Amino acid sequence: MSQPLRLGIAGLGTVGVGVVQILRKQAKLLQARTGREIVISAVSARDRTKDRGVTLSSYAWEDDPVALAKRDDVDVFVELIGGEDGPAKDACEAALALGKDVVTANKAMLAMHGQSLAETAEERGCVIKYEAAVAGGIPVIKTLSEALAGNEITRVMGVMNGSCNYMLTRMEDAGLTYAEVFAEADGLGYLEADPQLDVGGIDAAHKLAILSSLAFGTKVNFAGIELEGIERVSIEDITAAADMGYKIKLLGVAQMTGRGLEQRMQPCLVPETSPLGQLQGGTNMIVLEGDSVGQIVLRGPGAGAGPTASAVLSDICDIARGVRGPVFGQAATKLEDATPALSKRPAAYYLRMALKDKPGALAKVAAVLGEAGVSIDRMRQYAHADDHAPVLIVTHKITRSDLDHALSAMATTNVVAADPVALRIEEV
Amino acid sequence: MSQPLRLGIAGLGTVGVGVVQILRKQAKLLQARTGREIVISAVSARDRTKDRGVTLSSYAWEDDPVALAKRDDVDVFVELIGGEDGPAKDACEAALALGKDVVTANKAMLAMHGQSLAETAEERGCVIKYEAAVAGGIPVIKTLSEALAGNEITRVMGVMNGSCNYMLTRMEDAGLTYAEVFAEADGLGYLEADPQLDVGGIDAAHKLAILSSLAFGTKVNFAGIELEGIERVSIEDITAAADMGYKIKLLGVAQMTGRGLEQRMQPCLVPETSPLGQLQGGTNMIVLEGDSVGQIVLRGPGAGAGPTASAVLSDICDIARGVRGPVFGQAATKLEDATPALSKRPAAYYLRMALKDKPGALAKVAAVLGEAGVSIDRMRQYAHADDHAPVLIVTHKITRSDLDHALSAMATTNVVAADPVALRIEEV
Repeated sequence: MSQPLRLGIAGLGTVGVGVVQILRKQAKLLQARTGREIVISAVSARDRTKDRGVTLSSYAWEDDPVALAKRDDVDVFVELIGGEDGPAKDACEAALALGKDVVTANKAMLAMHGQSLAETAEERGCVIKYEAAVAGGIPVIKTLSEALAGNEITRVMGVMNGSCNYMLTRMEDAGLTYAEVFAEADGLGYLEADPQLDVGGIDAAHKLAILSSLAFGTKVNFAGIELEGIERVSIEDITAAADMGYKIKLLGVAQMTGRGLEQRMQPCLVPETSPLGQLQGGTNMIVLEGDSVGQIVLRGPGAGAGPTASAVLSDICDIARGVRGPVFGQAATKLEDATPALSKRPAAYYLRMALKDKPGALAKVAAVLGEAGVSIDRMRQYAHADDHAPVLIVTHKITRSDLDHALSAMATTNVVAADPVALRIEEV
Repeated sequence: MSQPLRLGIAGLGTVGVGVVQILRKQAKLLQARTGREIVISAVSARDRTKDRGVTLSSYAWEDDPVALAKRDDVDVFVELIGGEDGPAKDACEAALALGKDVVTANKAMLAMHGQSLAETAEERGCVIKYEAAVAGGIPVIKTLSEALAGNEITRVMGVMNGSCNYMLTRMEDAGLTYAEVFAEADGLGYLEADPQLDVGGIDAAHKLAILSSLAFGTKVNFAGIELEGIERVSIEDITAAADMGYKIKLLGVAQMTGRGLEQRMQPCLVPETSPLGQLQGGTNMIVLEGDSVGQIVLRGPGAGAGPTASAVLSDICDIARGVRGPVFGQAATKLEDATPALSKRPAAYYLRMALKDKPGALAKVAAVLGEAGVSIDRMRQYAHADDHAPVLIVTHKITRSDLDHALSAMATTNVVAADPVALRIEEV
């Protein structure tokens, strides 16, 4: 029988406690499945006195996660502290420096420092595993890096922030405004301490940056993501999109193009009948497309103690079984730079504007769009209210720069009441 | 640099040729991802002269797959012949006897002989990998055995035969009868040479038997599956179910109960708004439920050369990377016997019957149901046609034996024109 695998767990929030609970409850099963006993040597958190609903007295305690990472009785450092810098990164670096494997759920750290951490790990012969960093309980890291290893990945796409999807579906279901739903979600504790991480799309973009690297063999490039949050999504747009057969989702898309890596995280329209369109509430969905496999869709809980702890356990069990491999699917030193490609691929767009009640207003808008090379697939004008008529347009496929020209020209017509809303319609 | 991993590929149908093509096209990528060159030493098929659209002259040829498995220049035997016995099994056993790893897509062989093959493999320190055996390109084997290793699996469920799902959705979309759609699917080459494997649910049940073993740590027990195919699903039932908000799917369900392992493969009703209900055409969907993770849904192509070859490559890459482990997730000698539990858990049922045009007919049926302890959740009677009135009933949760009593009693009332149709409504 092999030696036990000895863990040091840093960070005892709901996920950390969830991991401790699974390791206890399923000890026998884990040993049967991995062929090895998995034990906790020591734990670390900020407040030793806090009641976490689980007895920790049988484990050594360290106030300092770096000290935990360095302990001789810790083989694997499990980092569940969070934060892109600070103690989480210090402790991971300390573990790697001593040749210890790392399991982490820290998307921010990997999105910002993944490349240097991976290089350090691979120099030392260590692994960094991070299934829990992206899409909670959904095994997207394992699927991309192992199950689809025979594929050239052509596109990665998905809804990766459950809080945003909850808010968007709640607006739709209850007819509430963004501000109302934001207050509600914040009150329910659904948002990060800094809500901008959620509603600004940053958390989801961290995840997309990690998936892109794995999918395309490029260095993690968070800064290269075209990023827009959901703050400007209005109930009017949700209603109008529904009227045209679409749902609005905060959608991440990564795609390798001839010009470089296209990475976008922004509110998009998707057909209401598509799997992404049908995704309700806090659930996550990842769509993976490969040249051989076609399209694989993974759906599941994107957050929460149980699902995230399940993903952490997947990594721990892999290490116990001796499953190793490069951090981002290929040797970190061989990863290519991800040249950001501004999204120049043509797409259909949804436009919503308020026309002033003037004769010939619609004709002017149509003329301006036509001059900019924007052809109209579908158009609806609704009855006037307050001297303005809401107009919805779905364009044929155009480039973003054609669209921008058309929007600028429209502003000069003096018949459009405010800046039109323009949202990309994603092909799913 | 490690030695190349040398493959012997037996069976050069569309999947075998697909595997050869990926190994060639993605050779560089596969080496970057696995850290090892993967080469084909030799191939085998029945007809050497057949044009398969791919040049095979650089590989040694063996007419006999057993000879291929025994070659000194073959490290991994890739079995893509199919069939539960015969050359496929002989060649796998020959490879294992010589301590070689096996990759196979052969669900029938594993469902019937998985236990003995696993015991042989583990005695010899070999692995048998079979991602392609279940649900084509969907990584369900890897997800169950690795990603959810920290979970006690509570239920496995899914649509695992694309041909049947194609036929059922085609009946629904085009309003065709089972016989019409069967002829169409057969003409299009969508069905196995023995169509009973598809429409009789046998192929899907093979897959369910494998998933059950992995999920619950039990020996593969194909014979323990309650099995019913789609041959008796009528267009009337599809239409009536839709009218009540349901779709009919050939659904596999495996669940460990206090009385043993419940395994069912049968036409069931699922809510039309559920992910399973929305599954169209030949796509497969697997739903996995674990005590920590909750519910994970995997969706993708369940068959076809590209997706199946993608799954075979996943296994080959795992072996190249040194990912090993027991065949059914735990040591084969430790797997428990799967005592079949007849499905005694209460469920709601859908009943469709034709009532004779006699006064009090409906009252008689209702009385008989009530006496058998079957309470009615919803009931619809439609207008009479040909002296018969179609009646649909959705029951509250009852046991199968309560239902059987009610059906027997109904037969004695002399007001029901033919045997009622009874289908389980699955909670998804």
